[in-house]
Amino acid sequence: METVTEHTATAWLSEDEQRAWRIHLDVSRLLMYQLERDLQAFGLTNNDYEILVNLSEAEDRRLRMSDLARSTLQSKSRLSHQITRMESSGLVRRENCESDRRGLYAVLTEHGWETMRQVAPRHVASVRAHFIDLIPPESLAAYHEALRPVADHLRTERTK
Amino acid sequence: METVTEHTATAWLSEDEQRAWRIHLDVSRLLMYQLERDLQAFGLTNNDYEILVNLSEAEDRRLRMSDLARSTLQSKSRLSHQITRMESSGLVRRENCESDRRGLYAVLTEHGWETMRQVAPRHVASVRAHFIDLIPPESLAAYHEALRPVADHLRTERTK
Repeated sequence: METVTEHTATAWLSEDEQRAWRIHLDVSRLLMYQLERDLQAFGLTNNDYEILVNLSEAEDRRLRMSDLARSTLQSKSRLSHQITRMESSGLVRRENCESDRRGLYAVLTEHGWETMRQVAPRHVASVRAHFIDLIPPESLAAYHEALRPVADHLRTERTK
Repeated sequence: METVTEHTATAWLSEDEQRAWRIHLDVSRLLMYQLERDLQAFGLTNNDYEILVNLSEAEDRRLRMSDLARSTLQSKSRLSHQITRMESSGLVRRENCESDRRGLYAVLTEHGWETMRQVAPRHVASVRAHFIDLIPPESLAAYHEALRPVADHLRTERTK
């Protein structure tokens, strides 16, 4: 069978590189899939949860929409749809800040905060069961070390 | 400031665990974001590319829709929308198999195959530049080893 990797001068991945890349992709996808499945019990998606985390850790539990878009890697229009859905579930509300002309904010509601208090321990248990507890402690440190230059590079690229 | 991690008996992550988890999340998201940015030059999304890879590696460059949904972790309805979009760009077509009652297939078109031949080398160059070449070879092997039990576990969970 002809394959796309034939007859080219491309620096295709070696077997070891291919294995590392494949497992990165598989774990990323499968883990997001599994965590979302676990969050469904609370009526939340991974995107919802990420926004709840960001807001619950922010000062006064509020963030400017543009900052929230940046930290969740979403376009402003996609985030706006997302926030509309979360508003209708009562988890967040939009607020204009009169003293700040740049300021449309997303604010965590009391219901959003209570939801986080309830869901966060369950979510951490999922992260443990499906990721952290499956990796020996000494490998965890090596894992972080291996990915640090990748994370630094990608953060720099993103601001270009 | 009150935080959600206070006053609970939950097994929260240690500092090392938190760092490993954070960097996994950051790299996963930033990398998908960067790779999609690189694919945009060819009018493709990460999801499009994943489907093209799956079809181009399949026998006769075709897969049953239900198998394609399984291997890309998408719901059948979401995959169906995706395939409709890719049909209108001429990358794939749907085909019924008369001898197989289960059989609605997605088939790579000649244009889809030519697109893969053109894009695949550029995509591999992106994967190198933003991931593989930033990790020393000896760490790549350790990376694969560390994630293997996670991947095995998640594949088992998925079939439950």
